[in-house]
Amino acid sequence: MARINDNYQKLRAGYLFPEIGRRVRAFTQAHPQAQVIRLGIGDVTEPLAPSIVTAMHAAVDEMARRETFRGYGPEQGYDFLIEAIRQHDYKARGVDIAADEIFVSDGSKCDSGNLQEIFAGDAVIAVSDPVYPVYVDSNVMAGRTGPLGDDGRYSGIVYLPATADNGFVPDPPADDAKVDLAYLCSPNNPTGAVATREQLARWVAWARRTGAVIAFDAAYEAYIRDPSLPRTIYEIEGAKECAVELRSFSKRAGFTGVRCAFMVVPKALSGANARGERVPLNPLWSRRHTTKFNGPSYIVQRGAAAVYTPDGLAETGAQIDFYMENARIVRDGLSGAGFRVFGGVHAPYIWLQTPGGMPSWDFFDKLLTEAHLVGTPGAGFGPSGEGYFRLSAFNSRSNVEEAVTRIRRVFG
Amino acid sequence: MARINDNYQKLRAGYLFPEIGRRVRAFTQAHPQAQVIRLGIGDVTEPLAPSIVTAMHAAVDEMARRETFRGYGPEQGYDFLIEAIRQHDYKARGVDIAADEIFVSDGSKCDSGNLQEIFAGDAVIAVSDPVYPVYVDSNVMAGRTGPLGDDGRYSGIVYLPATADNGFVPDPPADDAKVDLAYLCSPNNPTGAVATREQLARWVAWARRTGAVIAFDAAYEAYIRDPSLPRTIYEIEGAKECAVELRSFSKRAGFTGVRCAFMVVPKALSGANARGERVPLNPLWSRRHTTKFNGPSYIVQRGAAAVYTPDGLAETGAQIDFYMENARIVRDGLSGAGFRVFGGVHAPYIWLQTPGGMPSWDFFDKLLTEAHLVGTPGAGFGPSGEGYFRLSAFNSRSNVEEAVTRIRRVFG
Repeated sequence: MARINDNYQKLRAGYLFPEIGRRVRAFTQAHPQAQVIRLGIGDVTEPLAPSIVTAMHAAVDEMARRETFRGYGPEQGYDFLIEAIRQHDYKARGVDIAADEIFVSDGSKCDSGNLQEIFAGDAVIAVSDPVYPVYVDSNVMAGRTGPLGDDGRYSGIVYLPATADNGFVPDPPADDAKVDLAYLCSPNNPTGAVATREQLARWVAWARRTGAVIAFDAAYEAYIRDPSLPRTIYEIEGAKECAVELRSFSKRAGFTGVRCAFMVVPKALSGANARGERVPLNPLWSRRHTTKFNGPSYIVQRGAAAVYTPDGLAETGAQIDFYMENARIVRDGLSGAGFRVFGGVHAPYIWLQTPGGMPSWDFFDKLLTEAHLVGTPGAGFGPSGEGYFRLSAFNSRSNVEEAVTRIRRVFG
Repeated sequence: MARINDNYQKLRAGYLFPEIGRRVRAFTQAHPQAQVIRLGIGDVTEPLAPSIVTAMHAAVDEMARRETFRGYGPEQGYDFLIEAIRQHDYKARGVDIAADEIFVSDGSKCDSGNLQEIFAGDAVIAVSDPVYPVYVDSNVMAGRTGPLGDDGRYSGIVYLPATADNGFVPDPPADDAKVDLAYLCSPNNPTGAVATREQLARWVAWARRTGAVIAFDAAYEAYIRDPSLPRTIYEIEGAKECAVELRSFSKRAGFTGVRCAFMVVPKALSGANARGERVPLNPLWSRRHTTKFNGPSYIVQRGAAAVYTPDGLAETGAQIDFYMENARIVRDGLSGAGFRVFGGVHAPYIWLQTPGGMPSWDFFDKLLTEAHLVGTPGAGFGPSGEGYFRLSAFNSRSNVEEAVTRIRRVFG
């Protein structure tokens, strides 16, 4: 009898977003007339920018002619995209990243789920709590944890509470915590908090002292409004020796259904093998990426490259401005209604405290049934998310305004 | 210091195709005038069919309008594609597959590399030798093998030699070999051999007797010419209780650069956990797929669905006829020149014996330098591939004819 991976049986029953989907479907089937507004899953709503559309049409046409048809592409991604990333995302910030340090992928969800594969089976990971669930679940599946405890935490993982007290940006783990890999997301999903230069510098100093690797998830960096805040962890001295960085076109250019992202794995970054020898991580990840992946669609990569043209930058920048005005409206509206709100300034997420300490799934159900509004319960992101709730800024202006009106009506 | 996955250090130095790419680049840089013809990596050359192009343009236009824009899709794939797969690939062959047994992905390379994750860390795998390298390498990375031996084989893997004696379709492993997962590719990459109904029935009977799971890789099924040969393993009674099936649009519709595939994981299929309890594999794979993947691009899925329209079927069918006529030309040309050739009848690969037992990398270098022709050395697929060489039928008619002329000139 084929033996299964028993670690899957440790996983919490449902991944957060499918569970939300299930509850919303049940409600809408029972109430087909309800005008449900979705500020839950964090999915963009604005259409693709014209520059991207033009580039993708051109790429489809190239694929239609024998002379310009493209079959297998380079697994790391096409040079035209990698060069645009190097110039605009790094060189423009004073950071020099080599072409073979950039690995184009079909999503940060995939990258953040797959990254753990190049680390030892008994490596210790650290995550914020609340946390994007993929960081945890992918490590549970790989057997790096014990069972799920009654406290909602897996044994073997170092959890770093992100609370109002620390502004939702936890300090790095203790030096003696023996952490191998720490996931750090800024601007943060779900809390909307953003790490300052000083906070990132403390993380980099910790990783360099202990030899840990930081997986810096900057999928939302385009939402940072303050130009003095770091946009990449490599703006911090020494980060290339201790951090990989994940970036995505999903929220920056409306690619949630198009699928393109990338990860930077600097050549200066290394781990240790069983004999204590230093092993660079870039060739390990390259081997993983080229063995199990073939690069995103050519058409998608042409679309992503168009984001970096002058028109593409202007058009996608305007979309982000639009979403961030939505965030301001939600933030101000809820503050005015007496809610305690966080985030929403350098991130498209508003993190609100539920009124009177209401459990977050109860708040979810109340909001769905009474305001016909979908958000994301904080408890779905970890035990320290209990008592909080995530609303996203991704929707039309009128829906966002209507959502605020409904919340104020139900909780006013 | 972050501990790495030591298993990566067991891997052979270079993945086969990057090594071929390296040698070809070195040659073409030294000989920029050489007209190199590539029959190596097995990449399609015909442009996308008109129906696919039209569907992808329409999908891009949908993404350009707020009313029809699509963000995150269902991780398993869109219903419009899954229904087309169910009807055309299965119901038309008398096989009933449920919608939630089909998982759309971005490539069979990814699926065949990821599948092993849902099996135990000490599960035993069986592969043909020669073999598509991803089956082996993904299991080496996961720690299911010992080191690479001097014989070119990893300890801990059950290798099944595919030789001229068994028509390159090995019998299943012995019942006492304790195999958990066996990879079976038909039509075969690299040998071009195709399993008969009787051979598949022996495999299914073996798996049902022993409780093993068969990963049936049918990426090349569209190349089967004889309508009496099975096109899916589910045409064999009992296969749903013991097999997953991998399919791809890469070779069937020219999607190597577009990226779309799918895997069938029947709900009747199960493995055993540590307590010996039966655990269905479909929910395990669903969890893996939804946690670490977001579905292929919407635009790509619209293109894949167009393959199943009447025009799409006719256009892609004509492409396959074209490649198979190429295969016949290569086969007949090399046979006429005294080569011993296999495959190329129900598969786009011709598997030829090197003349005089020449080592296959020597044959590669001789073909490259003297005929300016790129193929794939059999040794790259495993020790039993030594003395063989793979040529693909993917190229223009004139290049294929020129390739045959050159081989006959060099080896005539």
